[in-house]
Amino acid sequence: MTSHPPPPTNALVTPLLTDLYQITMTYAHWKNKRHEEHAVFELFFRKNPFKGAFTIFCGLDEVVRHLHAFQFSQEDIEYLKSTPSLQNCDPEFFEYLLQVDCSQMQIRALQHGCLAFPRLPLVEIAGPLAVGQLLETTLLTLINYPSLLATNAARMVLQAQDHDQTRQRHDTLPQHCPRDPKCIEFGLRRAQGPDGGVSASKYAYIGGFIATSNVLAGKLMGIPISGTHAHAFVQSYLSLEEVQDLTITQKESGEQVNLLNKVLEYRDNKNHSNIGDAFQKTNEGELAAFIAYASAFPESLLCLVDTYDTVNSGLLNFCLVALVVHDMGYTPKGIRLDSGDLAGLSMACAQKFAQLAESQQRPFFHSVDIVASNDINEKTLMELNQQGHAITVYGIGTNLVTCQAQPALGCVYKLVELNGKPRLKLSQDAGKVLIPGRKRPYRLFGKDGTPLLDLMIDARKDEPPVAGKPVLCRNPFQELDRTMVTPSRVVPLHGLFFGGNNDDDKSATVNNLQESKNFVLEQLGQAPQGLLDRSNPKQYPVTVSDNLYNFLHKMWLEQLPMKELS
Amino acid sequence: MTSHPPPPTNALVTPLLTDLYQITMTYAHWKNKRHEEHAVFELFFRKNPFKGAFTIFCGLDEVVRHLHAFQFSQEDIEYLKSTPSLQNCDPEFFEYLLQVDCSQMQIRALQHGCLAFPRLPLVEIAGPLAVGQLLETTLLTLINYPSLLATNAARMVLQAQDHDQTRQRHDTLPQHCPRDPKCIEFGLRRAQGPDGGVSASKYAYIGGFIATSNVLAGKLMGIPISGTHAHAFVQSYLSLEEVQDLTITQKESGEQVNLLNKVLEYRDNKNHSNIGDAFQKTNEGELAAFIAYASAFPESLLCLVDTYDTVNSGLLNFCLVALVVHDMGYTPKGIRLDSGDLAGLSMACAQKFAQLAESQQRPFFHSVDIVASNDINEKTLMELNQQGHAITVYGIGTNLVTCQAQPALGCVYKLVELNGKPRLKLSQDAGKVLIPGRKRPYRLFGKDGTPLLDLMIDARKDEPPVAGKPVLCRNPFQELDRTMVTPSRVVPLHGLFFGGNNDDDKSATVNNLQESKNFVLEQLGQAPQGLLDRSNPKQYPVTVSDNLYNFLHKMWLEQLPMKELS
Repeated sequence: MTSHPPPPTNALVTPLLTDLYQITMTYAHWKNKRHEEHAVFELFFRKNPFKGAFTIFCGLDEVVRHLHAFQFSQEDIEYLKSTPSLQNCDPEFFEYLLQVDCSQMQIRALQHGCLAFPRLPLVEIAGPLAVGQLLETTLLTLINYPSLLATNAARMVLQAQDHDQTRQRHDTLPQHCPRDPKCIEFGLRRAQGPDGGVSASKYAYIGGFIATSNVLAGKLMGIPISGTHAHAFVQSYLSLEEVQDLTITQKESGEQVNLLNKVLEYRDNKNHSNIGDAFQKTNEGELAAFIAYASAFPESLLCLVDTYDTVNSGLLNFCLVALVVHDMGYTPKGIRLDSGDLAGLSMACAQKFAQLAESQQRPFFHSVDIVASNDINEKTLMELNQQGHAITVYGIGTNLVTCQAQPALGCVYKLVELNGKPRLKLSQDAGKVLIPGRKRPYRLFGKDGTPLLDLMIDARKDEPPVAGKPVLCRNPFQELDRTMVTPSRVVPLHGLFFGGNNDDDKSATVNNLQESKNFVLEQLGQAPQGLLDRSNPKQYPVTVSDNLYNFLHKMWLEQLPMKELS
Repeated sequence: MTSHPPPPTNALVTPLLTDLYQITMTYAHWKNKRHEEHAVFELFFRKNPFKGAFTIFCGLDEVVRHLHAFQFSQEDIEYLKSTPSLQNCDPEFFEYLLQVDCSQMQIRALQHGCLAFPRLPLVEIAGPLAVGQLLETTLLTLINYPSLLATNAARMVLQAQDHDQTRQRHDTLPQHCPRDPKCIEFGLRRAQGPDGGVSASKYAYIGGFIATSNVLAGKLMGIPISGTHAHAFVQSYLSLEEVQDLTITQKESGEQVNLLNKVLEYRDNKNHSNIGDAFQKTNEGELAAFIAYASAFPESLLCLVDTYDTVNSGLLNFCLVALVVHDMGYTPKGIRLDSGDLAGLSMACAQKFAQLAESQQRPFFHSVDIVASNDINEKTLMELNQQGHAITVYGIGTNLVTCQAQPALGCVYKLVELNGKPRLKLSQDAGKVLIPGRKRPYRLFGKDGTPLLDLMIDARKDEPPVAGKPVLCRNPFQELDRTMVTPSRVVPLHGLFFGGNNDDDKSATVNNLQESKNFVLEQLGQAPQGLLDRSNPKQYPVTVSDNLYNFLHKMWLEQLPMKELS
């Protein structure tokens, strides 16, 4: 809190990025002189996405930037004055709005990247009623999609890395690149707007992806960027004549060597052992394109091999160029498959690589990457594992960034306390009943370092749980579901990420990108058994103290109208 | 083209908002001295979204802004130089990149808001190979989501407005507000990033929504904004004491009248005919909140009525306050339902309104709005119509903005010509084979003003179709599917939206927001029969000229390798 963070990554994030009703409610509060009353709101969700049992909390980084920068501009105010909905408002209201900032707010939240569960307060927003209200929509926008995306990314990485386990069951598979497949984000072109793309790159990295194709995300956030060439590059060449003068630099000697001549020596078996007739029947435009690419990027030769025919053309053309590139002192990187039966094609490619590694005595062929892209989602990843494959890298776009399986997380933002008094919201849908009052959440760990459950206590009345001391933890809605827990370790889940130190809290700093990523990895590594399962995962308990349980049920009974019969 | 448009709405839209492979390909082209070769790319999709038969083309507005502003900054270049993937590139390349702009490009496209169909070139990008390549990802990002969203919005509006038709079948329904239900966009908080929200507001308006809750979209684009209050506002009041001093201004006399006293006169039947005992058993905190809201916004009283109990509390509290507000000279606007059985609740509310209109002699109750929100999607709208309801306005959020039913449109960007020579891309998936060469699309209309089909001709060889003259139109992939069309009217579908006038084309101007919206409405009004059907809609033919058909098949046979058997 000593130095201000930069403004939000997206310049559209301003106080006007909100729903009109936040402004009309603020006016009504201001007019009725309630705008300064002390309110506490909670931001939480009611259900994990993707039929899963966990959610990765993200977006706090941009929330904190927004809080620091929060200020209506004179231009904003002029616009508001001009809208029909607000034109009859008292002019003094707009003077009030112009000077509103977040200096009186305190924001507590989970750390960035923290595993989160239904009903846990992800963020607690405390301060003047009007300001808390003005923050609602923007905070939801800044948290819903990032948390959804990071969760989606983590699920895909977990699914991709089930690979080895599955492979052990397929003895016939070539042992190509026996390492965990990695995931790279390729989704910008199909994202829901430019910002959807940039956010996806960031939060997918936190969720476990290793890189992105999105250059801007690289520049703005330092995420590793990745990419080679597209079909258009291959199509742009029709014949070998177009590349007859291109050279490659011999790495050690610096000598310029004609690339095409060297490739043709292999292809036409001029000075080499018989490489096979199939190599002479490939598409020559494609071979020309790979030669052109190798001439420009000898250090990082990775070719898209499915423009014409993967097995009979693209794969073989890559191998020809790879042999020359290797002769020149570089290590070819691999191929990318973007259509067809990815499992079968990857196996065919791995077999060819294994064969050449041996016949040409080039062990590097054993470890070139086989990148697969083309509408990959969690289900495809599972099916690929079941079929058996030799893919080493997944490029995942559309279904990652748009979260196809569930394109929105349902975080809500609810008033839980006003002027020190807990507030309740009933609902005809029992699942939507609010747990009233201000709470403090803790994560209780067992002896083996695994989280046992989360416990929310009444912030005003309860003592925090203590390691080694038994504490009663109750399901907030089910009377009979009670657990006495003696935690080995207790971690308070909320840090104070914004606002003055008026109480005992110390200010917390939001995890940076790399810290968030590491934090996610660490938590997934120590996840309770069953939590990460894809079918029927084990839901993690979020409980309340006995005191909070009793208070909730008392208030509920008081406010729910008694049914009458006569 | 005489004056430059403003920069893109989202400042993230810069040349770096692209995939790395566009830069690496550009380097390879530059290094091999092919970057200036004249290329033609086409942007198109292969399948309509949402199992439908039409797509609304949108996003051209931001594309044109991007083209005008396209320029790498020195900072961008420094970043690119520093990335591992590009660190071995010739330093002169970066000098080239720094001076790249779109001054040599010509962009033809459908008009903004045009109905589009599979394989129709939405945008044709012509100019130097490298620049065309550098534009790919950004253009896809700027078109995919806007077109998807506008289409989703239009489908929802069409579905919502099936209402009257359905209602005729339900004679028991109260004839409340016998006008077509309207749709308002409420999705910002669940959008995929801030820009997803702002884009959604804009393109939903073009697709037929009448307003948005998003204030920033109102400011930036002049879209009508809408909103009143949330549950939090209701929860913030606990008792009538909190509003005992609030007044309302008598509209004609200007007199300040105590609002609570007037409300209590109705509630407790002090000076009025018996309004019913039920009114005395409502939640008083809620009544206080409505009084507070009416005091601030007497001109636009619209209350959220489901915080505690819609029929037994919220509805009745609204009616009490509405009576007073009406006495003071204003017309109350209505209620909003945000949970429960929306069809049944809306009917119950309409019945109460009809009853009060009569018993209290207040005809205005017949025409107050019944707004419904809460996870509405196309399917819910259909079910509501089937059940029968009295909803007059839908607030649609999550499922509109995230396009839940299909969260991405699959536009692609393909090289179709280089140096005047058509380029082909084959594929193991026949549906992905490219139609090579540069084309001009036309829409052919029948006598009744309805479009018959679209025809793409060879831009280099074919004569444009002419009204009154028969022209052979062929399915590009099916030999036997041929139609001789004598159009009554022929409309060229492409306008030149960017680039110098080197040929006969006249520059076109992108439809503004209102023009786009009107254009969509007009086209949907004259859509061919079956096109808008929701189950098994009739697909609209996109055909090619006989010449283009023959050329495509000749080239295809030439480039597809002959199978060999021996």
